[in-house]
Amino acid sequence: MAAEHIEDELVEDADRGYEAAAEKEHHDEDNRLRPDFLRNVREALRDEDFERVYALVEPLHPADIADLLELTDEEERIALARAIRDLMGVEVIAELNDWVRERLMEGLPADVVAEIAEQLETDDAVAMIEDLDRADQQAILAELDPEDRAAIEAALAYPSESAGRLMSREFVAVPESMTVGDLIDFLREGRELPTEFWEIFVVDPMHRPVGTCALSWILRTPRSISLVDVMARDQTLIPVLMDQEEVALRFQKYALISAAVVDDAGRLVGQITVDDVVHIIQEEAGEDALLLSGAGDGDIHEPIRDAYLARVRWLIGNLLTATLASSVIAMFEDTIARMVALATLMPIVAGLGGNAGTQTLAVTVRALATNQLASTNAWRAIRREMAIALLNGSTVAVIIGIAVSLIFQNTILGLVIALAMMTNIVVAGLAGVFVPLTLDRFKADPAISSSIFVTMVTDSMGFLVFLGLATMSGMVG
Amino acid sequence: MAAEHIEDELVEDADRGYEAAAEKEHHDEDNRLRPDFLRNVREALRDEDFERVYALVEPLHPADIADLLELTDEEERIALARAIRDLMGVEVIAELNDWVRERLMEGLPADVVAEIAEQLETDDAVAMIEDLDRADQQAILAELDPEDRAAIEAALAYPSESAGRLMSREFVAVPESMTVGDLIDFLREGRELPTEFWEIFVVDPMHRPVGTCALSWILRTPRSISLVDVMARDQTLIPVLMDQEEVALRFQKYALISAAVVDDAGRLVGQITVDDVVHIIQEEAGEDALLLSGAGDGDIHEPIRDAYLARVRWLIGNLLTATLASSVIAMFEDTIARMVALATLMPIVAGLGGNAGTQTLAVTVRALATNQLASTNAWRAIRREMAIALLNGSTVAVIIGIAVSLIFQNTILGLVIALAMMTNIVVAGLAGVFVPLTLDRFKADPAISSSIFVTMVTDSMGFLVFLGLATMSGMVG
Repeated sequence: MAAEHIEDELVEDADRGYEAAAEKEHHDEDNRLRPDFLRNVREALRDEDFERVYALVEPLHPADIADLLELTDEEERIALARAIRDLMGVEVIAELNDWVRERLMEGLPADVVAEIAEQLETDDAVAMIEDLDRADQQAILAELDPEDRAAIEAALAYPSESAGRLMSREFVAVPESMTVGDLIDFLREGRELPTEFWEIFVVDPMHRPVGTCALSWILRTPRSISLVDVMARDQTLIPVLMDQEEVALRFQKYALISAAVVDDAGRLVGQITVDDVVHIIQEEAGEDALLLSGAGDGDIHEPIRDAYLARVRWLIGNLLTATLASSVIAMFEDTIARMVALATLMPIVAGLGGNAGTQTLAVTVRALATNQLASTNAWRAIRREMAIALLNGSTVAVIIGIAVSLIFQNTILGLVIALAMMTNIVVAGLAGVFVPLTLDRFKADPAISSSIFVTMVTDSMGFLVFLGLATMSGMVG
Repeated sequence: MAAEHIEDELVEDADRGYEAAAEKEHHDEDNRLRPDFLRNVREALRDEDFERVYALVEPLHPADIADLLELTDEEERIALARAIRDLMGVEVIAELNDWVRERLMEGLPADVVAEIAEQLETDDAVAMIEDLDRADQQAILAELDPEDRAAIEAALAYPSESAGRLMSREFVAVPESMTVGDLIDFLREGRELPTEFWEIFVVDPMHRPVGTCALSWILRTPRSISLVDVMARDQTLIPVLMDQEEVALRFQKYALISAAVVDDAGRLVGQITVDDVVHIIQEEAGEDALLLSGAGDGDIHEPIRDAYLARVRWLIGNLLTATLASSVIAMFEDTIARMVALATLMPIVAGLGGNAGTQTLAVTVRALATNQLASTNAWRAIRREMAIALLNGSTVAVIIGIAVSLIFQNTILGLVIALAMMTNIVVAGLAGVFVPLTLDRFKADPAISSSIFVTMVTDSMGFLVFLGLATMSGMVG
């Protein structure tokens, strides 16, 4: 985990220079690996021509090697990983999908995994082994040198998805007494520096951060100036137990490149850099669509068993609420028996309500997730959704009302369905905004269960209002 | 738009140092502004006590001032912006929600907007005025000095959502002949440097980038070493016309902090930094939930009229597909008339199919958006979804089959609904994966219209299979 010396990096960079051009041949216009390239790799694997596999894969960028591993089937993947063993470096491992990495790590012997872990920064090493079971973790940790082992064990002691798991323990922290010149000399001598850093932290004697200095400010400042005169005192400090979603929101809100992580006593214990946060921002933002539909983790690499368990639970929940809607219909069996057209039309009222509710829900959940919506502006959001619901409701009600009146030659039926549609779309709007706001208020994730409640309301109300109005209208003989 | 001199920044930073502590009082545990703080600001606005407003807002971080403007109602917002006029700096404007910014810009006189634009980097200035109508843009551009005007006009000439709009024209580019020492001297003299930069670009005499140098590498290297020996030749160059979503994917995939933007001839024309990309990653990833539900832009600050038009179009689309499902039911009116229980149960079959289809759809759309799914692994994804659909289908079919047999004391009805449920969930899985894959293949955004097709299939198939099997079973007298 020790930083590589700068000269080693230079050699590596020079080696890779000429390959940048070659890479372009491997990609389609969306920067995905080309199907014919993948076919060549697969053929070579099938022929057990491992030299050819190596020659094909070698020019790729590490992130593309990770993509390649993800694109291959599970059996192929292990053969591929063996064939390109010494290309499986730091960046490949860090870029791999969590599920793919976990299964690959399970398939490799502990000493090989440990060898990879030693090259990684703590945060990447932790990400690599945190999902393995305890026994596998222990086997790997036992192979590490004591210092790295201690760092990884300390990180694993923090709750998963916390800043402590995410942070790197490699960072540059210097005392307040340094000048710009001192710092540059210190960095030039440094052997134990992180491979990448964008800001340095100035700490007091208790190791508490007092300021942050972007490297560009240092480069622009004469050697004699003191660091305390260059640094920004106004810093965003991340408590070590902060949830990663919250960390991501801070990075985004304050446009951070890196941030100091502090313990309870305010001491600097690590740094988080934006490249680690970018994945979280993407995942957390993309999660809404998956959570709202009950698709759980929703990763295409998730084992079938896990995906099945997550999704079937949701379907069974929906089965229960559908039963409720069904019992509403059952109350009106007599009415339906006397006028079967009602059975034909009732799913339209329920379905459109469901659609309108889902729209409001998606907007509300997104606004809550991005901290745009809070108790302070909830009433404004509710009024806005009501206005939209009234507009949507009247538009759809007029269309369906006229259509039904004409097709069924029955004005009362047209009025009944128009009124039911209007009511259900307004109810859907109310449910779509109140359900997630209420869940959020009680500290539940509104994306996780809102849509079951909202669908329950729109289905039941749709059937109740439509069949109820039809019964009362006196048109049913 | 000229870079501020470093000393000015120091004074500003020192001023803000003591305020960091004060800020904590303004936030709740989720880092949102506290309701009581907002109430105080509103009260002061209502009392027209603008000095108090200023005193309350002054200690806030610019990003929090932006939040405050977003949280206030539209009428309050203009009064607030006036009261805190000289706090409305660069960072506040850059952090504002697009809709809120647009309406605020429309409300301010052109010379004030121009004054703000002069302080901004090109990318932020462009973001500020790109959504205004042509006449407002012209009025503002006329107020700018010629150099800034030319830069902004050039940026506006690129298509919206392209790298050209996103990039900043302020960056550090130096010739290959420089050593580390030359560069440091150059930076120390520099008056026209960007306010923030994280990497410098080395260019050939034609101004084409030949390498990138992280500032940390420069700080760690002796003065005498040539830049070409420190820089990475392997760079990710962004073509100026690349779509911003693609730019965001590159930043994420290759863990970039900044990247050079090049024109057709390969010449360096700008740089994009990760802080500009983070917002895009968040928006693009969060968009799926909104697009899948037909909520359009889905921003709670979007004008009601725009939101209504986006959503009602979707509801009318769904109305048409619901009519199709309705006509399927109409084919079985005789069957329903003879056994009204079928009308009670049929929405369960259609609804559960819809839920299962939406799950598969959400997973597939997410995988396509993140470049995890392509033609190269489509068959694996399809097989996986089929396996999950068979498991889900059998589980739900067994539960509903047994429940219906017992409740209705009718084994045939139980078998019919079980078989229909199984079929519909498998069909839902197929539609959920094939519809978005097909749309993607034809270069359409699968998030935008997939769910209408999928719901159409699950509704119609649900009714058709259930009512069809019931009719054929002979149980209906």
